[in-house]
Amino acid sequence: MNSRQRLAIIGFGAFGRLIARHLRPHLSVCVCDPHHRSNDLPQVDLVVAASCDIVVLAVPLSQFETVLQQIAPHLRPGTIVMDVASVKVEPARAMQQILPEHVQIIATHPLFGPESARDGIAGHRLAWCPLRGTAHRRVAALLRFLGLQLIATTPDEHDRDMAVVQGLTHLIARSLDQMARPTTRLTTESYRRLAEAVAMVRADSPELLHMILEANPYARPARQKFLATATQIGTVA
Amino acid sequence: MNSRQRLAIIGFGAFGRLIARHLRPHLSVCVCDPHHRSNDLPQVDLVVAASCDIVVLAVPLSQFETVLQQIAPHLRPGTIVMDVASVKVEPARAMQQILPEHVQIIATHPLFGPESARDGIAGHRLAWCPLRGTAHRRVAALLRFLGLQLIATTPDEHDRDMAVVQGLTHLIARSLDQMARPTTRLTTESYRRLAEAVAMVRADSPELLHMILEANPYARPARQKFLATATQIGTVA
Repeated sequence: MNSRQRLAIIGFGAFGRLIARHLRPHLSVCVCDPHHRSNDLPQVDLVVAASCDIVVLAVPLSQFETVLQQIAPHLRPGTIVMDVASVKVEPARAMQQILPEHVQIIATHPLFGPESARDGIAGHRLAWCPLRGTAHRRVAALLRFLGLQLIATTPDEHDRDMAVVQGLTHLIARSLDQMARPTTRLTTESYRRLAEAVAMVRADSPELLHMILEANPYARPARQKFLATATQIGTVA
Repeated sequence: MNSRQRLAIIGFGAFGRLIARHLRPHLSVCVCDPHHRSNDLPQVDLVVAASCDIVVLAVPLSQFETVLQQIAPHLRPGTIVMDVASVKVEPARAMQQILPEHVQIIATHPLFGPESARDGIAGHRLAWCPLRGTAHRRVAALLRFLGLQLIATTPDEHDRDMAVVQGLTHLIARSLDQMARPTTRLTTESYRRLAEAVAMVRADSPELLHMILEANPYARPARQKFLATATQIGTVA
């Protein structure tokens, strides 16, 4: 991948900024976001963004389909469109349905947040679902060069696993957070791990919570199963 | 505390053995347990055990009162009786009620297990409730010399905190264990902490579980509050 390739980040929130920081040494990065402007990266409109070689969608899920429809007519043959949403079934379906056949598609989910990547992205994991085309191999090579660990999966497998991994972690963390006074003197090793998990997800945005708890089709069944299991154990005990 | 002081461990399960290993360089240790014999420590009956300077009760909670009643007539003035149960309200009440006035009493709960203390007890925590007498200061000095961190508390405060710290950790861990296929590829940092907590309590004995989930008077209300909170969050979301 030569350094002249142009990458557009659509949606310049916390994650968009993280992407920009790590990719700008290697690609010509521009930003498209009417609300969050970059201080030093070119700001472009959706039509120009769509004309880039790689288009990364980092917008909230609620705007996802609208943005896809807006960029679709302007995407060039061979362009790579990627998303970074925390769920994969729904964005993957939308991209495959709305984007023209001549566009390549990769669905991804970085399994880390701007917070945990403060000291760098090397060693972090990224769920990786190549959906259309072969250019994903070159993008994968760049991301691996940056130290990321790519975990090949499918949107369906991703959402099934994340219903437990993210869905239940958040449900448990939020429940403990609401009820328990923080104990710092009398603790066990296992409780400290639990408290660490709670602290890690405490700052997650409402948008992320909605995705994790609602937009994942497997989240509600996983939650119901956990609650039923816990209620049974908690009542019988 | 001079090295001639005699310490009896009543109940030679995993925890009794851990105590013996760490205290025998400093005290003359003997063991009283009809079912678990020591290979190299003197085995004594309850009457001899009760005549020692320090008596540590490491029996299951179900045998606790019976053993107290059996040793009570044989305890000498000034003897220190300690327990190491994972709950404190009930053992503290039983010791104060059943043991003669001339006996000193310390209720303790080592906030670690034989597993996590495999590489030593230094740095680990012990909940510390001196209930009667002043000799607890000398015992505390020995335990601090061994590297333990003593957390002064009351039986009531201990059980309130532990209803969350141990009770909910176990409820959550057992529920996750029963329902979730272990995910090792797609994980987040927070989920890994949660999974570590689950792994740590997975091997806990039914006896310990009973104590944590049932014998703690605050466990059931804490559990009910957690389940109600989680159900509300999980359903509204």
